[in-house]
Amino acid sequence: MASVDLNADLGEGYGAYACGDDGAMLSVVTSANVACGLHAGDPEIMAATFRLAKEKGVAVGAHPGFPDLWGFGRRRMPFTPAEIERLVAYQVGAAAALAAYAGHRITYVKAHGALANLAAEDRAVADAIAGAVKAVDRNLALLAIALTAQVPAGEAAGLEVHQEIFADRGYTEEGQLIARSQPGALITDQEEAAERILTMVRDGAILTASGRKLPTPIRSICVHGDSAHAVGTARAVRAKLEGAGVTLAPFKP
Amino acid sequence: MASVDLNADLGEGYGAYACGDDGAMLSVVTSANVACGLHAGDPEIMAATFRLAKEKGVAVGAHPGFPDLWGFGRRRMPFTPAEIERLVAYQVGAAAALAAYAGHRITYVKAHGALANLAAEDRAVADAIAGAVKAVDRNLALLAIALTAQVPAGEAAGLEVHQEIFADRGYTEEGQLIARSQPGALITDQEEAAERILTMVRDGAILTASGRKLPTPIRSICVHGDSAHAVGTARAVRAKLEGAGVTLAPFKP
Amino acid sequence: MASVDLNADLGEGYGAYACGDDGAMLSVVTSANVACGLHAGDPEIMAATFRLAKEKGVAVGAHPGFPDLWGFGRRRMPFTPAEIERLVAYQVGAAAALAAYAGHRITYVKAHGALANLAAEDRAVADAIAGAVKAVDRNLALLAIALTAQVPAGEAAGLEVHQEIFADRGYTEEGQLIARSQPGALITDQEEAAERILTMVRDGAILTASGRKLPTPIRSICVHGDSAHAVGTARAVRAKLEGAGVTLAPFKP
Amino acid sequence: MASVDLNADLGEGYGAYACGDDGAMLSVVTSANVACGLHAGDPEIMAATFRLAKEKGVAVGAHPGFPDLWGFGRRRMPFTPAEIERLVAYQVGAAAALAAYAGHRITYVKAHGALANLAAEDRAVADAIAGAVKAVDRNLALLAIALTAQVPAGEAAGLEVHQEIFADRGYTEEGQLIARSQPGALITDQEEAAERILTMVRDGAILTASGRKLPTPIRSICVHGDSAHAVGTARAVRAKLEGAGVTLAPFKP
Repeated sequence: MASVDLNADLGEGYGAYACGDDGAMLSVVTSANVACGLHAGDPEIMAATFRLAKEKGVAVGAHPGFPDLWGFGRRRMPFTPAEIERLVAYQVGAAAALAAYAGHRITYVKAHGALANLAAEDRAVADAIAGAVKAVDRNLALLAIALTAQVPAGEAAGLEVHQEIFADRGYTEEGQLIARSQPGALITDQEEAAERILTMVRDGAILTASGRKLPTPIRSICVHGDSAHAVGTARAVRAKLEGAGVTLAPFKP
Repeated sequence: MASVDLNADLGEGYGAYACGDDGAMLSVVTSANVACGLHAGDPEIMAATFRLAKEKGVAVGAHPGFPDLWGFGRRRMPFTPAEIERLVAYQVGAAAALAAYAGHRITYVKAHGALANLAAEDRAVADAIAGAVKAVDRNLALLAIALTAQVPAGEAAGLEVHQEIFADRGYTEEGQLIARSQPGALITDQEEAAERILTMVRDGAILTASGRKLPTPIRSICVHGDSAHAVGTARAVRAKLEGAGVTLAPFKP
Repeated sequence: MASVDLNADLGEGYGAYACGDDGAMLSVVTSANVACGLHAGDPEIMAATFRLAKEKGVAVGAHPGFPDLWGFGRRRMPFTPAEIERLVAYQVGAAAALAAYAGHRITYVKAHGALANLAAEDRAVADAIAGAVKAVDRNLALLAIALTAQVPAGEAAGLEVHQEIFADRGYTEEGQLIARSQPGALITDQEEAAERILTMVRDGAILTASGRKLPTPIRSICVHGDSAHAVGTARAVRAKLEGAGVTLAPFKP
Repeated sequence: MASVDLNADLGEGYGAYACGDDGAMLSVVTSANVACGLHAGDPEIMAATFRLAKEKGVAVGAHPGFPDLWGFGRRRMPFTPAEIERLVAYQVGAAAALAAYAGHRITYVKAHGALANLAAEDRAVADAIAGAVKAVDRNLALLAIALTAQVPAGEAAGLEVHQEIFADRGYTEEGQLIARSQPGALITDQEEAAERILTMVRDGAILTASGRKLPTPIRSICVHGDSAHAVGTARAVRAKLEGAGVTLAPFKP
């Protein structure tokens, strides 16, 4: 079995506002998606997060979102794909610069929150994100939500694309995330979440609500960085995978 | 006589707010200092300015300032040199990315407004700016206000440094800009401004209020982009220099 | 014939960014809708605008919009009616305070841009705006776009409601503004605009594209404050009305 | 012995960012200083905080600060007293409106962070704050840091002024807060803090580092809302005072 990556959104504080326990999380994950200052994060937090990730041997990626600090990037803001392209290019450049400043190097891009969800559904938005990444640095990989429009968009742009699944979410029969308002959307039991992840990684398939297996080249597992149980879930998933002999390693070191 | 560069601050609008006549200015200057979104500019304006500069064969640089849109970067914000370093790295990265996106390439960095004035006086701030530029891309040049702390700071960081004078400002006996509150600070007559600039460029020296000449390797002339007479002054300076056989060309194409 | 009011959006600059010629406009209009700092305006501009309006005998109202300085309040931001209610209350309070500070007093509220357009179509949003006004000060009037959901919402909240028409816009057969993308949306000829306004005011009716007249209690005419021809259009409308014996006066002094 | 008030800064989150345990704190304090959206807080949080304070019978005041969300209002921003006056008026108005919206009513104003510290030292700034309060609503009281320039400024403006001491801070021989960088600045032991407060309230005097007592009309005790031990300290102070027979009540219900 190939290795798998464990990623989390980090550096999501702002000024005096903290968000999650980045120090603890950076001891568990293998890749850190770092907020770029428009929906969360600021130059101080970005530099500190990149520096700490470097120390801990964690790979880093830019994590651009909508310019919506108030909404933490979770609101679907009314921007056109062309505007999104510029917004993403801006953030990827800022992140690349601060990573370099901190002695690290970003190797991938993953969209945040509402931008990611929109890009999962809307190919034009996914193309905009991929186009921005390609324009800024075609060697950056794209970390895409598995089986969504993000995947073909990244491939069409000639980017290296890696697919991720979520540690604590249920999946529809089409392999999409079950909407948070629906039953089965969230897996709250850590042991159950870890067990599901091991099954999916081992089988190379997404497990749907009905128990079907959708073959998927799973390269990374996303654990959320900002919830109360985030570190616990991440540790449980990691322990379960390692216990089963799965190697944890960044998909793009 | 070597060629000289003509630079202006451009892309200083924000959303629906316009600032200056960038189209006209880009037909006159040889280098454009492009605002990076924290004191002015936004991703849309940045991309459009870089694209138009590329079309017109104008060199482009990042023009970082304090995060102070309300004050247009003219207030001295209470940031430490270390914080300024991160703020500058962030902005340089964002500008480099949007220039690449627009098919152009930034070749230099010039600080804006209060940040530039502070860096002219305070070596620690000048070092912070130079350090940020070096960390992000050591091939970027630094466009420095002549005879200020910006020059040795850039040189100490190993950067290529070019010095600029201002088309419409008077100089003290030490070669510093006369404070705007003092008599002789502003040269409002376009013909006089152009004549002074020709003299300084020809003699390779800054002309002080008393008429002394301070030898200075003048590589660029700054014309302001946002005043009512900006385009007129820029054209007058350019015409005067060209009429005297001086070649106008970017210091860092 | 009763008097009619002439209103314009003013105080729409931000920091160093100017927007329109407020001084000239305040010599023409009878009511000024003052931006409240979230889509345009800032405390300095608000205070200065209220002060100048007071000097010129112009009535003032709060002009709240979406928190979208970048988009000048013209983007439909994804806020719920309940969130809009709080956003409007916040802005009305800030405007009331700065008007008092400047020696003036706001007497009405008019929504701006995308918020106004949304409230014209969506009764829940219109109710949110009316509810916020009522909660903050039930003596404030509501200046509503004629024949839209804003009118019944204001009336249901027990507010004094006044209806406005636009000087430079064409109307559908239902009395709604023709969308800007459609033919006939804009009346660009000042004389034609002024003539149409006189007809509508005289007849107490909105003139549709086909020439029908929809009886409407027209109490105010909106002239835009930020276009190149704004002052000219405002003067033409005022001259035409005064020439025909119509008195210009605020609907809520 | 008269009653004494217990106040804390509340509503200091922003969007998804939490700050302190407002619910617990509102069960302990008698007055809540509510952030106004420029250094912390937003319309959602303001309305919710005012509503909860109303339910719990806690008095509320506007808590204006510098427009510095990134710095949480702790940076001394370069604004003139005249600009500060407008900034404070804006925030007081917004807070008054949202309190009214939430069914409550602000009865006082207390400056936040760097603005408060500046106003403690600089009479012109203190006058600006007092002037803004007076202009917006002369019935609002001013909650002032004891023995600072805030007190005479408020009195000169004709405002009702109440003086506060800090539960966890040491005092110089002049009755000023010992700078945080100095020894004795912070009282970290809750029992010691509570004991000191009881002594000061009972004696009507500020206790200095050397043990001197400076007679002061102490009307309120400030407990910080955003530290880890905030609720514990507040409870300890309240219990100590009540145990000694001191009544806790708002200075301005």
